[in-house]
Amino acid sequence: MTKIEHVIRYIDSELKSRRLTPGMRLPSVRQLAKQLDFSVSTIVCAYERMLSTGQIESRAGSGFFVSAPLEPLKLSNMEPIQVKHLDPLRLSRELLEASPSLIKPGCGWLPDSWMPHEALRKAIRDVSKESTFELMNYSSPLGFNLLRELLARRLQSKSIFVSPDQVLLTDSGSYSTDLLCRFLLKPGDTVLVDDPCYFNFKALLKVHQAKVIGIPYTTDGPNIEAFQQAITQHQPRLYITNSGIHNPTGAMPSSATVHQLVSLITQANMIVIEDDIFSDFENKHSPRFSALDGLTNSIYIGSFSKTLSASLRCGYIVAKPEWINDLIDLKIATSFSHNNFSAHVLYKVLTDGKYRKHLEQLNTRLANAMDISINTLEQMQIRPWIKPQAGMFLWCELPAYIDLHRLQQYCTEQGVVLALGEAFSTSGLFKQFLRFNVAQCVHYDVFNVLQAGLLASKPASTYMNDHLID
Amino acid sequence: MTKIEHVIRYIDSELKSRRLTPGMRLPSVRQLAKQLDFSVSTIVCAYERMLSTGQIESRAGSGFFVSAPLEPLKLSNMEPIQVKHLDPLRLSRELLEASPSLIKPGCGWLPDSWMPHEALRKAIRDVSKESTFELMNYSSPLGFNLLRELLARRLQSKSIFVSPDQVLLTDSGSYSTDLLCRFLLKPGDTVLVDDPCYFNFKALLKVHQAKVIGIPYTTDGPNIEAFQQAITQHQPRLYITNSGIHNPTGAMPSSATVHQLVSLITQANMIVIEDDIFSDFENKHSPRFSALDGLTNSIYIGSFSKTLSASLRCGYIVAKPEWINDLIDLKIATSFSHNNFSAHVLYKVLTDGKYRKHLEQLNTRLANAMDISINTLEQMQIRPWIKPQAGMFLWCELPAYIDLHRLQQYCTEQGVVLALGEAFSTSGLFKQFLRFNVAQCVHYDVFNVLQAGLLASKPASTYMNDHLID
Repeated sequence: MTKIEHVIRYIDSELKSRRLTPGMRLPSVRQLAKQLDFSVSTIVCAYERMLSTGQIESRAGSGFFVSAPLEPLKLSNMEPIQVKHLDPLRLSRELLEASPSLIKPGCGWLPDSWMPHEALRKAIRDVSKESTFELMNYSSPLGFNLLRELLARRLQSKSIFVSPDQVLLTDSGSYSTDLLCRFLLKPGDTVLVDDPCYFNFKALLKVHQAKVIGIPYTTDGPNIEAFQQAITQHQPRLYITNSGIHNPTGAMPSSATVHQLVSLITQANMIVIEDDIFSDFENKHSPRFSALDGLTNSIYIGSFSKTLSASLRCGYIVAKPEWINDLIDLKIATSFSHNNFSAHVLYKVLTDGKYRKHLEQLNTRLANAMDISINTLEQMQIRPWIKPQAGMFLWCELPAYIDLHRLQQYCTEQGVVLALGEAFSTSGLFKQFLRFNVAQCVHYDVFNVLQAGLLASKPASTYMNDHLID
Repeated sequence: MTKIEHVIRYIDSELKSRRLTPGMRLPSVRQLAKQLDFSVSTIVCAYERMLSTGQIESRAGSGFFVSAPLEPLKLSNMEPIQVKHLDPLRLSRELLEASPSLIKPGCGWLPDSWMPHEALRKAIRDVSKESTFELMNYSSPLGFNLLRELLARRLQSKSIFVSPDQVLLTDSGSYSTDLLCRFLLKPGDTVLVDDPCYFNFKALLKVHQAKVIGIPYTTDGPNIEAFQQAITQHQPRLYITNSGIHNPTGAMPSSATVHQLVSLITQANMIVIEDDIFSDFENKHSPRFSALDGLTNSIYIGSFSKTLSASLRCGYIVAKPEWINDLIDLKIATSFSHNNFSAHVLYKVLTDGKYRKHLEQLNTRLANAMDISINTLEQMQIRPWIKPQAGMFLWCELPAYIDLHRLQQYCTEQGVVLALGEAFSTSGLFKQFLRFNVAQCVHYDVFNVLQAGLLASKPASTYMNDHLID
């Protein structure tokens, strides 16, 4: 390697590590010569070579600068990420990339064996036999009419009254949230989320270059005073939340809170997206924004990825008619259509008369898993923030002396993927929290690994007087 | 209705028809009073009521203005649309919303009966029997590894040599293009497209608020001089095209053109997205950008919606490894995963040993349909721009005396949906063109309706000396 190449490689490494970023001034020729102990002429040659490739540019009188990015927009560049662990995308990728042999108490889905295989298989067979058209063709823009009618009827039980033409089928709940963000947001808009909230909301809002404000989440829902204050201070455009069962806390907002929020949202003329994908785990009905405000300033999202299949994806958006019309345009322009076969299969499963029983079994099983998990975790001094009434999530605070990154590392080495609280938070207040999926915990018995991990993650000094963990 | 309500309704209708748009000044009180023949005080009351609802706002000394939109972004508002017919979305919606009983020579897909039902049915049965995991679970972020390996091998026949980890599965070709636009573009960036081009590129680029420059398309591919000039004038970021068989013209760019374009694109450090979804209709190999530049400044998109199923959607992106890594982040943040079941079904069909034969049959059938269509259309004085060597599209110019909107209206009334040339164009040069899908033309024999439509769409004066059409 020549000296010139050495200099170029040095600058490259500064760029890769993002100590130098597009638009930043490079060290002056003299500075760098001194720093690397090379001659000024070596640095000049290196800079000239980089000028010729366009990597850097010179501005008369002000020196050399890193060129504006010709590289595409990197998500990770959109805002500086101080701590790699805070990146919500890291958790998504860890969970999705983990081999099927790993155990994932940190994930957001149920064990395969809890899902209705035979009902799905039968539905798939039936749809593939029955109709040629659905096997081959693009769907109508709104999607399969019978499924939309069914969804509209099902929504009545939540006091949401809509026509089937207000239900737009999409490929998933996530896709739906994204489509709505495209519809509603421009870069720089402020969006309120719960603190803590579903980690992928944070990643999604980063893509949309939104300013994200976290509202402290209480056992009754978001803190009203903080919500009010955020409205006054930030004029937010949007509030995105999991209504019904909250992710990650498992809490269900009280009627009083939802009522007050609807008033605030209406007054501020902002919009609420309620992502209700855990709806079918509910055993009592908590109020929905869309029910209370009649879809004036609210939009509802649902899907079946949590109770039927995450592979045969199908989600839906419920909104006022004029918005649905515009959302159709946006959907066609950006993805043309959706998976029509999945929509037909899910309709079959939902109408075969066994879905309700499947849900009952699932919810009984979840309630048992919840009890076992809470008891076992409490014996390890891991306290749930609340005891959720339904759903799969348990949000737990760990003792302050546990180093959660060490715990995570230990468990990962043992093949157990955890979900660290900080991925869910905008405030950094939940560094000592973990989100457990109780179904995955009891199904695979992750508690032994966790207990060993806790022992391995304590500072040496606490070992001695630790008679509680054993 | 009171007079005041009358005024309010009038303003509403002006807003709905977009004669008044947000930020525009309303007529002065005096003007409107005169225009509607109401008293000034009626107009004042009406304006005051609209002020109180926030529909309009007053600015001291300058009058009344339509309020900035509290309504979400409407695609149709992003730029003023002069002629509704020019809106590329209109064609997409017409085609997708048309009932299955309508005949669509304007559509971009083959008749159901041309598709391999039994192979698909068998693949669906096999996948649903074999594996529980694929029925239930989220896919890994890249997608089903065997399908990616197969796609990487298949690309070798196009001289594109990649690792399977450079193949990212998605839900469709359209979704892929959109994901790449999100990755590569910021609002205001300039994008080159062919003139004419696939109409949905125009709709998509509108969503991304890109400045779109059309490059005249010749029988050899885009005009090189115009391309060069557009680079100099507009510093485009991106060029999006259908490589291989061009949509709508059916042309295949020459090697010389692609070579020259690759040089231009490399020099300008812009990026080309080649949407190659018609690839399997090709009977001779035309060069691909991704092959010539080794995926340095190019990205490749494929899908199976045209030869297997548009319902079980699955597309893919091929790009350099570092971009794939960032695209995974973007995909997770915006849609979390993709339809894993479809990926497994398509893999089965592609590897059952019959796909090649299916393609042969399809292409023979298409070649016949192409010959018949060209002959029949020429008898009606409808001249194809070129005689395509492969594919389903035939791009035809109609005699200048035919009123294409009248023709379209006539055919729609007869249940036949046409694709007018202007939807494909950025220049307005192709108002006398139609894109025919020859498979749909011969399968449903649309020519009789077309011929009658032509007779109905001519000015009376041409009837007499028209001895050619009958």
